This record gives sequence, C-alpha cells and structure tokens, in this order.
Amino acid sequence: MRFWALTIKEGYIMIDEYRESVSYPMAGKEANKTPSVIDLGTCKLGGGHFALIAGPCSVENHDQILSVAEAVKAAGADILRGGAFKPRTSPYDFQGLHEAGIRYLLEAKRATHLPVISEIMGVNDLDLFSDVDIVQVGARNMQNFELLKKLGQLKKPVLLKRGMGNTLLELLMSAEYVISGGNENVILCERGIRTFEPYTRNTLDLSAVAALHELSHLPVVVDPSHATGRWQLVPPMAMAAAAAGADGLMIEVHNDPDHALSDGGQSITTKRFAALSEKIKKIRAVVSE
Amino acid sequence: MRFWALTIKEGYIMIDEYRESVSYPMAGKEANKTPSVIDLGTCKLGGGHFALIAGPCSVENHDQILSVAEAVKAAGADILRGGAFKPRTSPYDFQGLHEAGIRYLLEAKRATHLPVISEIMGVNDLDLFSDVDIVQVGARNMQNFELLKKLGQLKKPVLLKRGMGNTLLELLMSAEYVISGGNENVILCERGIRTFEPYTRNTLDLSAVAALHELSHLPVVVDPSHATGRWQLVPPMAMAAAAAGADGLMIEVHNDPDHALSDGGQSITTKRFAALSEKIKKIRAVVSE
Amino acid sequence: MRFWALTIKEGYIMIDEYRESVSYPMAGKEANKTPSVIDLGTCKLGGGHFALIAGPCSVENHDQILSVAEAVKAAGADILRGGAFKPRTSPYDFQGLHEAGIRYLLEAKRATHLPVISEIMGVNDLDLFSDVDIVQVGARNMQNFELLKKLGQLKKPVLLKRGMGNTLLELLMSAEYVISGGNENVILCERGIRTFEPYTRNTLDLSAVAALHELSHLPVVVDPSHATGRWQLVPPMAMAAAAAGADGLMIEVHNDPDHALSDGGQSITTKRFAALSEKIKKIRAVVSE
Amino acid sequence: MRFWALTIKEGYIMIDEYRESVSYPMAGKEANKTPSVIDLGTCKLGGGHFALIAGPCSVENHDQILSVAEAVKAAGADILRGGAFKPRTSPYDFQGLHEAGIRYLLEAKRATHLPVISEIMGVNDLDLFSDVDIVQVGARNMQNFELLKKLGQLKKPVLLKRGMGNTLLELLMSAEYVISGGNENVILCERGIRTFEPYTRNTLDLSAVAALHELSHLPVVVDPSHATGRWQLVPPMAMAAAAAGADGLMIEVHNDPDHALSDGGQSITTKRFAALSEKIKKIRAVVSE
Repeated sequence: MRFWALTIKEGYIMIDEYRESVSYPMAGKEANKTPSVIDLGTCKLGGGHFALIAGPCSVENHDQILSVAEAVKAAGADILRGGAFKPRTSPYDFQGLHEAGIRYLLEAKRATHLPVISEIMGVNDLDLFSDVDIVQVGARNMQNFELLKKLGQLKKPVLLKRGMGNTLLELLMSAEYVISGGNENVILCERGIRTFEPYTRNTLDLSAVAALHELSHLPVVVDPSHATGRWQLVPPMAMAAAAAGADGLMIEVHNDPDHALSDGGQSITTKRFAALSEKIKKIRAVVSE
Repeated sequence: MRFWALTIKEGYIMIDEYRESVSYPMAGKEANKTPSVIDLGTCKLGGGHFALIAGPCSVENHDQILSVAEAVKAAGADILRGGAFKPRTSPYDFQGLHEAGIRYLLEAKRATHLPVISEIMGVNDLDLFSDVDIVQVGARNMQNFELLKKLGQLKKPVLLKRGMGNTLLELLMSAEYVISGGNENVILCERGIRTFEPYTRNTLDLSAVAALHELSHLPVVVDPSHATGRWQLVPPMAMAAAAAGADGLMIEVHNDPDHALSDGGQSITTKRFAALSEKIKKIRAVVSE
Repeated sequence: MRFWALTIKEGYIMIDEYRESVSYPMAGKEANKTPSVIDLGTCKLGGGHFALIAGPCSVENHDQILSVAEAVKAAGADILRGGAFKPRTSPYDFQGLHEAGIRYLLEAKRATHLPVISEIMGVNDLDLFSDVDIVQVGARNMQNFELLKKLGQLKKPVLLKRGMGNTLLELLMSAEYVISGGNENVILCERGIRTFEPYTRNTLDLSAVAALHELSHLPVVVDPSHATGRWQLVPPMAMAAAAAGADGLMIEVHNDPDHALSDGGQSITTKRFAALSEKIKKIRAVVSE
Repeated sequence: MRFWALTIKEGYIMIDEYRESVSYPMAGKEANKTPSVIDLGTCKLGGGHFALIAGPCSVENHDQILSVAEAVKAAGADILRGGAFKPRTSPYDFQGLHEAGIRYLLEAKRATHLPVISEIMGVNDLDLFSDVDIVQVGARNMQNFELLKKLGQLKKPVLLKRGMGNTLLELLMSAEYVISGGNENVILCERGIRTFEPYTRNTLDLSAVAALHELSHLPVVVDPSHATGRWQLVPPMAMAAAAAGADGLMIEVHNDPDHALSDGGQSITTKRFAALSEKIKKIRAVVSE
C-alpha cells in the first residue's frame, strides 16, 4: 500500500513521498477475501447473516432489562444490548450500575437465551465481562490503544465503534490493534460523525457501510440511535442502513423512553421496534436477492 | 419560532435572547400540512410519487445525450438530467457546451418524451431555459440570493441543492427566497456535505431526508453520485436513500464513464442503472406499505 | 503539479492516477515569486504593507457611515468597509440599502479620503461600483463562477472571501478565475470555516494565512468579526491574525452595536477599535523585524 | 446554567426544554473568578505567567533527550516535553520506549533542572510518573473517563488535550472529571480539530484560547505542532497563539527532524526554536501591557 505525503515546492502542492507498506494487513481484504462471520450460537453476523441488536441504553434495574429483553426478543431481536458502564460527558450524570448492571444483563440473557453485548470502559473491568457475548468499545475509546491491546488477548467478539472524529482508515487501524493481538472477532460499527449540522446529534455516515465492505472482510453494524439522537429519525435511518448493506443494526429500545436514565430522546418504544423489525426483514430480502 | 443566542455571564454559557418569529413560513409545514407534489405531466414527484432522475453529468454532444436518454428511459428513468453550464473548481476545466448543450438536451427530450432538468449558473441565462422542465440550482449557488430571487419569478419547478457547507435550516431559508418570490415549485436536494472523512468526496447526510420531511412540505431528492464521488458506492447509497423515504433520486449515468468529460468516476453504466432501478422499485414498495 | 486519485484494489486504498498539470498557474508562486502589492493610493496592502479595514457591517444611513468613517480613520483605519448589498440567510432580514448605500459610502469616502470596500452580489450591479475602490466577493459567492468571470474583466482590486465550506485549494482556484480573466488585483480573505464547534459562529482558520503565503503571491486579509461572531473574541483574534503574518485585517466597527441593523453582536465599538489598532501596530513591528 | 433541547412542532424547530443546572461548577469561573496558576517551582503557568514547553515528540534514546533538553533550555524553554508512551494510529508504528523513556526523561530533568511533561496512556502506568512534573492526557484519551477519574486522585498537574472531534464544552466537562475527583491542577490544551481542510493535519482553533478564558479559570496552552503537522507553519501559529493570549505553548523541537522516529515533519530545529522564543517574548510583552 502506498501512503502519500504532501509538500510545497516553489509554491505548489506536490506529492513527494510514498511509503510502501501495508497498514491493516489483517483487517483488510488481503487477509480474507470472503467476509468474516461472527458466530454467536443462536445467531450469526456477517457474510450474509444479519443480526438485530436491541435494548436500552443503560441497564437501569432488574425488572427493566428483563421486560425490555422479552419485548425485543418477541419483536425479532437477535442480540440484547444494555450498558452497565456509561461514558458520560459530565461527571455528574448517571454513570451506570457497573457490576450490578452486568449481573442484571446476564439474568436477562438466561431468561431469554439472547446473546448480550455491553460496553467496557477500563482494562481492569475485564473479569466482569466473562459471560458477556460481545464486548463493545465505545466511540470515545476507539483510540484507547491500551484497551484495544487488552481486547486483542481475548477470543470473544469485540464491537468497535467509530469515533465521532475518526476516519474509516483510523477505524480499520484500531481493528488491526485487536486482530494483530490475536483476536479476529471484530465487528465494526458506524454511529455518526461530528459535522457542522446541528439538527442531528451527529451525522450518520451510511456510505461507511459500503466503503468498509470494499476495504475489509469485517462485518459492519450501524447504530442509528446515537447517530441521530432523535427517535423519530431512527426508523428511516435503520431502514436506510439495511438497504446500504449493513450486516446488523444496533437500536436503542426502551419500555418507557420518557423516563429513561440516559438517552431517552433517541430510544424507540418496543411497539415501534416490532414494526420496524418487520420492515427491515423485507428490505434485507430485496438487498440479498 | 424561537431563536436562541448564547452569551457568557460569570463564566457560564447562557441562553439570553429569543426571537419569536417564523423563519420559513412558506417552506415550513405551517404553510402546507400535506406534502407538495410537483407535476411534470408524464410523472409526479413528492407526496407519495417517486421519480428517478438520470443522465450524464454533462451534455457532451448530440449523440451522447440521445443515446443515454434512450437507455435511461428504457431502464426506468422518469426525468433526464444533463448539464450545459458546469460549475468547475478550475477555470481550465471543461465548462459545458452552454447554448448548444441545452439544444441537444431538448432534442433528447423530444425524442424520448422525458422531462429534462439542467443547471443554471447565471441570472442572464434564464431565457435559454424556457423549455427545460426543472431548473437546477447547484450546491455552490445555494446562497446566490440574486439567482434565487430571479427564480422566484418563474412558475417552473426549481431543484435546489444543499450547499456542501450549509445546514438544513439554511437550505429551507434559501427555498423560502424562491417561494416568497412567488414560485412554490421547489424541490430540495441532498448531495453530501463537507466533513473530515477523505474516503468519499463528500459525506451523504441521509438523515436530511427524514429531517426535511419533518420540517417542510417540499419534496426531497437525493444525489448519491456527487455525494460519494465513487460509482461503486452509488447503488448502495441510492437504495439507502429510497429506504430513508426520499421522493426521488438523481443519478449520474454515462454510456462510457471512462471517457466522460466530467465526473466519470462517479457515473454508473446504463446497464448497472437498469439493475439498480429494479431494486429501487422494490424498496419503495416496502417503504410505502 | 501532480494530482492524485484513490482507488481500491483487492481491498486496499491505492493511489492509481496522477495528473500532471498546473491548477493555479497565475495565483501560485510560479507566476510571481515576490508577494503582490495592491496599491490604493493612500495605502498599500501586501508585500510588507499592512492595511486595517474597518467599518460597519451595513451602511444604514448617511449619518451613521459618516460618523463611523471619521471615528475609524481617527483610530488608524486605512480602508473603510460598509455593505450596501447584504447576503442574508433569510429573505425577511434587512437586505441592505443597495444604490443609496453605495452613495452614502462614497460620501464617506469623499469626507475622509479613505478608500472604500463594499460587497457585490450580482453581475448586473457592477456599474454602481465604479467609484468603490475594492469590490468584495462574499463567502457565499466564492464559487459563483459567473460573477468571478465578470470581475476578471475589471482592473479594480477584488477581495475574495473563502467560503465557509471551501478548502484553500478551492480559494486559490477561484482567485485563478479572476486573474485568468485579466485582473491580477486579487486579495484573499480568511473569515472562518464551518466546523462542529458551536461556541463560535465559525472556526477561524489562522493557519490559512501562513499556508496561503506558502502557496501564493497574493495578499491575505483576515476577518475575525464574521469568523467568531462574538465581539469579545475579535480583539484577541485580530492580534493573533497580525502575529500569524496577515497582510491586513477587516474588522466590523459600529458606533452603536446594540442597535445595528445586522451583525451587532460581532461589532466592536470605535473606542475598542482605537485601542486594538495600537496593539496591532506593535505586533506588526515584532513580526516584521 | 440552562441547557436547551430542540424539538419539532408542526414543522418548526422549537426550543422546548431547559435544564437548570451547572455543568462544570469547578472548572467554570464561578468556582474561581481569578485565573488559576500552576506552580512548578522553577516556573509558573497561568494568571499572567507564560511557560514555553519544548522537546521531541518521542524520547528516542538517552543522548537525544539530553541534547535536546540542553538546547531548548538554552533557547528559553521552561518545561521539557518527551513522550515515552506514544498513541499511534497503527499498531505497527513505533510505540515509545515506555519505562526506559521515562527514565531518560528524568535524567534530562536532573541534568537541566527543567520540569518535565510526558503522556500517560493507561491507568496501570501511573507509578512510573511519580517524578514527572506534569502528566499529559492526549487528544485520543480526552474522554477516557476511567483515566480522568484516576488522575483526579493525584495532586500533580494534568495537561488535558482537546480531542480532535470534541467541543470546548466537552473539554471543560472532562476537566471537571479531574477536578471533581480532587485534583485542581488542570491545564487545558488546544491542539487542532478535525475539519474538511486537508492542507493542514488538523485545524488549529485559536479562538478556543479566548473562549476558554471567558468560560474557565484554568490556564490554556496551545500545541501548534500537532495542530498543523507541518514545521513551516509552527512559528507563525506559535506567535499567533501568544498574541491570542495563550498561557503557554507546547512545541516539538528535535535535534535532527529528518531522522525523528515520530512526527519529524512537524518538529522545528533547536536553532529555529531559539529565534521563535525571542519573538514570542516580544509578543507576550505587547499582549500583557
């Protein structure tokens, strides 16, 4: 692979240097010309397999996660999400239930037999995640290289979210940190980038889906909830992501969005999720033809 | 409508001023609670009617535009596009055929009975557009207010592209310039915004489709060709736009992309367009259910 | 000069094409290895000559522009600014006094013997600018190529503002439109770009000053008023621009900012301008040593 | 403090919710109306005290850091920088000398009596930093909240870099994580943000300096080396930062930039640093008048 560097010579921008090297040999297509498949037992993700990840932003208490888990399963979800460690901009906002949150999430897993995904924030919390099926690295930690190196020592799937200010190339390089450490089970996730447009929380970059499929064998999931920050925009963006070829979707669903402890404004109700799930299936059928 | 202004008091950001006013009374939903429909005779756009706009970036010569016109019509296009005035970053690049380009485009219109759309760049060129069905305002002229005021005096539909560095609110305000001048036939077009991501030419902001439908009664068209700048990404982004609820698509199609005088790299072949057209119809069927 | 194009081969980003050409031969340093100087009679701008442009956003009436003109002259301004044609986001906002505005501005010119600068918005208004010393092209018209071509036929200096969503390369290409038309008197102006940061109206890109001096022989002016949108930030950013090597500054000064018809929030008082003018001179002395 | 939320009612953007709360009570001016001063023994930073931080991007070996340390001290540096843990986009790039790097840096401290600053990447490396005078949190870790909480337990100064995709409000909130944990010694650092402009590595947002001084009592340092990524732009941007009122500068200086193990392209020579240091002092004198 060639990199380029720009320089100025007599007042013109010139390309003056190339570096022949491979920047993401294990995340790139050269390593694996066929798409990777993540096998979670009850479902698969990637290489033609589509998975719907749903659940609340935060695990708030035992009953909440149980009831949302049952509702999203009935509505077609394949994987349950629920945050126990919450990266919050302000130190005064709800930071998650930590150990108890993971415990409640695992109870929901046992009750519904859905695989579960939850976000990790620190290298020292890893032991708590031994029964969590997918470890999520949040956008703010996409370049927390110490954490990535640690996750490279696992065998467990890692869902790696693109940072709000990070390029696709950097996302692939961060995936390379995990894979080169020994863990091939990486799922990429587009969740919106920072732009000048204030109407949405971030700008969902759906061309990332097709672009990442050109560049890498890794599956690509889209999170329309964090990207838009507005529940009204979640269904159209979820359908758009499926049409763009995403291998999965991660959608925030809450039994009572108005009283959610975090991100209520971007969560859809379980009823709306059920209707959306039906539409997604039909769009997937058109795309996979 | 309330606007806000921020100020600093004793070290904190404060909201200190509101302006009660309506900023886009005619483009907004208050003016028209049902979606507007643009009627072009052979097809409609908006309010449940979907239109596929296709054609080359530039009209290059008589035979080229005729042959592309026939091919895209056969493949399901509703409207023919073709640029005669080309806004080019460099003064040394091909600037379009001007009057001859419009003439060839109108010959293709007569031959195929497809309505045609072409871009206008200056207020003094308006006479040439009398038989053009839709006048396009390009992204670089979205805030060329002199031009917008002039187009407000027409009755002809105006397709207004969002500027690369412009917000949705500004797009609606520019539409308001045209409508408040007396011309209600405005079509909004999302074509990608400037972000830090270098992989695509611009970043296609598909949440703009649903957002503009929340805010306005005007139809919304998506141009995945200019947004991505890469023909490989056009089909997935076109399908995604349809799934997001767009009222139409504008796609660059060329009989010989490798030898196009402009934007060959983002044009798809007529054969690929035919296949895409089929998929789009099926996705529209799912969305409209 | 070489351009690059990226493509994907077997999953990797590759540089696969170069175009040997010169993109801005007349704006670039090859055309003129020594910096260009704009001579306005009473002052010069560029090549070691620094000019302070000051005045209200809009010419509001005869007395206002006269009194501000005298105040800024007394405080050290070299050139008087005042808008008669105002590009406003909303069609319902004050659009400027047009012909009367130019007339009042020219009266202020006669009274103070300061050269004047004012913005042009349409190709058909050019006759009104015959006694205006510098014609300004606003950020929204940086790629209004019809207007640029027209201004290339003048001999009068043109101050070309960088668009909010435009790169430095595009700014130089737009300058090339004017110069290749026959008018070498182009002044570049950095006035802030669109970013995700909401605290300031735009983000002032001061590295553009040094970058444009690397790439071009044209003088570079900075407008901290529009860039920040907050009068409190104007003095520190004006001093920073002078320290970065700008050839001039354009600062909005108003006799009564609280009652300005446009942009009051970013205008400084004549008293503050006088103090700032002193500081700028001292910083210029350090930079030019 | 009031927060705002936007919603859509009948097609208009409305402000419909305010949250009365204080988001950064300890980093904001309410906590401390006079600017904070960081006392490092041999020098101070903030509240009128200006400090020049200089040194190589990475500590490469014993002799390199010693020789650069002596050169920058002779040229007027107040604090020595040198990275031992390097956050690199690619796992295959030089990651720093880790423990040995800190050891060499401390030897340079003993030899020159300059206080030293070095970047920390993981919560488990803290013991190594016991004799490092300022602990740096890099841009990629600005929202690594686990790390921030840990640093809140120290008494040692923490230099917190703004993330490439982060707002000023988020930077202050991250500072609040450290201060609310018990450590008041926080220094903010602007180092460029991600924008669409490709000419510079990032866009240095110098208005952040004045803005942060409006909002907070904490000192603000500017890093023009990482912001621009081009050594030619470092001197003008360093002078501009001083003119904008920065409390300090962090500049990459290398004895042999062409053979640096990281970031050579943005490092200036010790000779150029000496000349720059003189200019900075004179600009500081103008600003502090």
